[in-house]
Amino acid sequence: VRIPPGTSRGGSTHSPARIEALTDGVFAIAMTLLAFRLAVPDDLAGTTLPRALLDEAPEFVALVVSFVILGVYWFGHRSQFTFIVHSNRTLSWLNILFLLAISVIPFSADVLGRFHETQTAIVAYGVNLIAASLAHFGTWRYATHGNRLVEEDLDPEIVKLGVRLSLIPIAFYLVAIAISPLSTIASIVIFAAVPLLYVFPLVYRLHPGRRKRQAGTEGEEPEEWE
Amino acid sequence: VRIPPGTSRGGSTHSPARIEALTDGVFAIAMTLLAFRLAVPDDLAGTTLPRALLDEAPEFVALVVSFVILGVYWFGHRSQFTFIVHSNRTLSWLNILFLLAISVIPFSADVLGRFHETQTAIVAYGVNLIAASLAHFGTWRYATHGNRLVEEDLDPEIVKLGVRLSLIPIAFYLVAIAISPLSTIASIVIFAAVPLLYVFPLVYRLHPGRRKRQAGTEGEEPEEWE
Amino acid sequence: VRIPPGTSRGGSTHSPARIEALTDGVFAIAMTLLAFRLAVPDDLAGTTLPRALLDEAPEFVALVVSFVILGVYWFGHRSQFTFIVHSNRTLSWLNILFLLAISVIPFSADVLGRFHETQTAIVAYGVNLIAASLAHFGTWRYATHGNRLVEEDLDPEIVKLGVRLSLIPIAFYLVAIAISPLSTIASIVIFAAVPLLYVFPLVYRLHPGRRKRQAGTEGEEPEEWE
Amino acid sequence: VRIPPGTSRGGSTHSPARIEALTDGVFAIAMTLLAFRLAVPDDLAGTTLPRALLDEAPEFVALVVSFVILGVYWFGHRSQFTFIVHSNRTLSWLNILFLLAISVIPFSADVLGRFHETQTAIVAYGVNLIAASLAHFGTWRYATHGNRLVEEDLDPEIVKLGVRLSLIPIAFYLVAIAISPLSTIASIVIFAAVPLLYVFPLVYRLHPGRRKRQAGTEGEEPEEWE
Repeated sequence: VRIPPGTSRGGSTHSPARIEALTDGVFAIAMTLLAFRLAVPDDLAGTTLPRALLDEAPEFVALVVSFVILGVYWFGHRSQFTFIVHSNRTLSWLNILFLLAISVIPFSADVLGRFHETQTAIVAYGVNLIAASLAHFGTWRYATHGNRLVEEDLDPEIVKLGVRLSLIPIAFYLVAIAISPLSTIASIVIFAAVPLLYVFPLVYRLHPGRRKRQAGTEGEEPEEWE
Repeated sequence: VRIPPGTSRGGSTHSPARIEALTDGVFAIAMTLLAFRLAVPDDLAGTTLPRALLDEAPEFVALVVSFVILGVYWFGHRSQFTFIVHSNRTLSWLNILFLLAISVIPFSADVLGRFHETQTAIVAYGVNLIAASLAHFGTWRYATHGNRLVEEDLDPEIVKLGVRLSLIPIAFYLVAIAISPLSTIASIVIFAAVPLLYVFPLVYRLHPGRRKRQAGTEGEEPEEWE
Repeated sequence: VRIPPGTSRGGSTHSPARIEALTDGVFAIAMTLLAFRLAVPDDLAGTTLPRALLDEAPEFVALVVSFVILGVYWFGHRSQFTFIVHSNRTLSWLNILFLLAISVIPFSADVLGRFHETQTAIVAYGVNLIAASLAHFGTWRYATHGNRLVEEDLDPEIVKLGVRLSLIPIAFYLVAIAISPLSTIASIVIFAAVPLLYVFPLVYRLHPGRRKRQAGTEGEEPEEWE
Repeated sequence: VRIPPGTSRGGSTHSPARIEALTDGVFAIAMTLLAFRLAVPDDLAGTTLPRALLDEAPEFVALVVSFVILGVYWFGHRSQFTFIVHSNRTLSWLNILFLLAISVIPFSADVLGRFHETQTAIVAYGVNLIAASLAHFGTWRYATHGNRLVEEDLDPEIVKLGVRLSLIPIAFYLVAIAISPLSTIASIVIFAAVPLLYVFPLVYRLHPGRRKRQAGTEGEEPEEWE
């Protein structure tokens, strides 16, 4: 059904505002549930509290790594939706797929924390992150293809940068899975390292157009993009 | 008490903004709790991690199906509230009833995942979804009756479409319950199939007015409605 | 420190927008956690699924009653903040106290559901609700005293109505506690009946000014107030 | 990549709106999960419900103290973001670090409640709060340094006040940790006392510039700052 323009509230029919609200909610909950999964020791028979807490160190590492990874995805979503100014059914469903992958991360992180020496835990965690990255990429690809849901004059460099930034982690996650038979610790180090590329914008170095551009600017702060 | 217009903030007395905020919150939590209910195996005595995770496959299927079903309800709510521009007590309470049904879905999904071969689990899940759909329908019916809470010139075709889209799933859920004595797997397949009608807008084919209209448009993208 | 006007964002220094956002979040979570506390039977040794679910009927009743009670408080908060247009430290802290009481309701509801024949469970639940109502009343009282945080020309009738609506439930909850030695079921019936006074606006009949006013209106829909 | 101004939505590229939304979500969940960690006694073999609930008194004290502490951080965040009007990558990540510390508080509070006589529980709780305060301070420091992300004409007194208000609790938490070998109860009293300095704005007395200023004002209500 063609909805006649003007029947809906203040031109906001296609606003992605509620997609953003739902997404912020899912991220806030997934982030907070990571720590909620930490088990408080019930009794200390045969152990002490410091030792019981130290025994949870792998779970705590998995928590911190996963929290920062969730932060990267959240920041990436926010960056995408700085440019995505319209929404439609397909975008909503790509976003819901993305949230499905995000909502499973606390579970995968818990498995990783408890069975960090098991290859299966690495594979499960990596597959979960790859699913999130693919949905993240798909959202951007769909929204920017033919400038479908973004401003008409969006700089093509930004489109390309968004594609790269969403696909680069997948390569790392595949490597982490590939080396897991050799060392699951090495895999976890890779999982932990990927977000650092984004927190400290090292990942921009991987962008060929960047150097040229930087030469032309006067050392200004990097802009609001993952 | 008649509240004199103008005493309230910027004409927003009747704005449904906080209904939308509460709803997005409940959906975000229900969606994220689906995966939180997945149990991480505590120890692997007599089994392996891959086998322990595979044993949870039915729970995982229930999670994915329920996540997508929640997505359909969320998208439907968002579509309704594109057109509902006022709110009042009755609308709020219909919406709270809707959220009550939504908030129980993670529980019903967990029961379904663990006891998928049991007819009771199918009935409980189906009844939960039917309750959500009835509240969803009631919200739309109440808001659009006499254009009570929508724009005065809202296209009657949209009103009718909204009614159908909220009632169609009930028929499927009743069939799923009816065939559960024969095969609970068949029931689950139906539960899983209903959202696909909405994700891919096949359900629009069920709308008689659609064909005629489509003939008149030039292949434009379908509009923002469930 | 006197903050010079104009240094802050768009005159929103005193906007209660974030109080509303935090409140909607706490309500959304408390509502969704009610159902999350329902235990899915782990195994069915010596019982069947229908029987196991029926055994949870008291918990389910406690869930529905508590969900609707949370709905009343949420609707009441929303009504209050239709008129509260400024915020300050004291309002924020009264609201945080209110949220503390709200956040404990899922716990009290769980105790009530499991030990509904125990007087202690009734008292705990009642005290929790009274605490919420007192904070709800305190918020309104503080905000409206001398029109401190509301529009200057707010109708005094609305102020009085808000006071009554927040205090009336306390009387019922005290009765529910008082009769709990005789019958805990009677207490629960009272807990369940109070929200109905608000869902169906029967509680307005308790407002002396109402009748007179109603005579003067032409059957218009009741306005946006709890 | 320099994002050309105007390609993004309505000048909101740098708006911290979504940082605020994510933060309100994490606080709402952390606050509500505090009470969710309270265990409902499963059966009352060898005890009574009043006694079982009384046995949870330390957990309940930890809940109330932690809820109010979360309230202080939330109010502090809100106060900071009254003045922070732009955002960038670094601010986002400082905020995510802050949220990481906040999300762990329900866990630390649970440990504190169950092992309140154990020095380790005090240290864990104190370290968690110090981490939150450092991130809180870092956010303010980064945003206000050279008026990086605040209004250009922001009163330097406000910048200084914000620094002090975020650092003062750290001194108290260090004292609480230091005296924990002598008395863990004394440590908990200090944890409980710190928020009172903020709820009742006693902490302002610690601000040297305040007295002078107060002399110059006519008893106006203190402004919107932690």
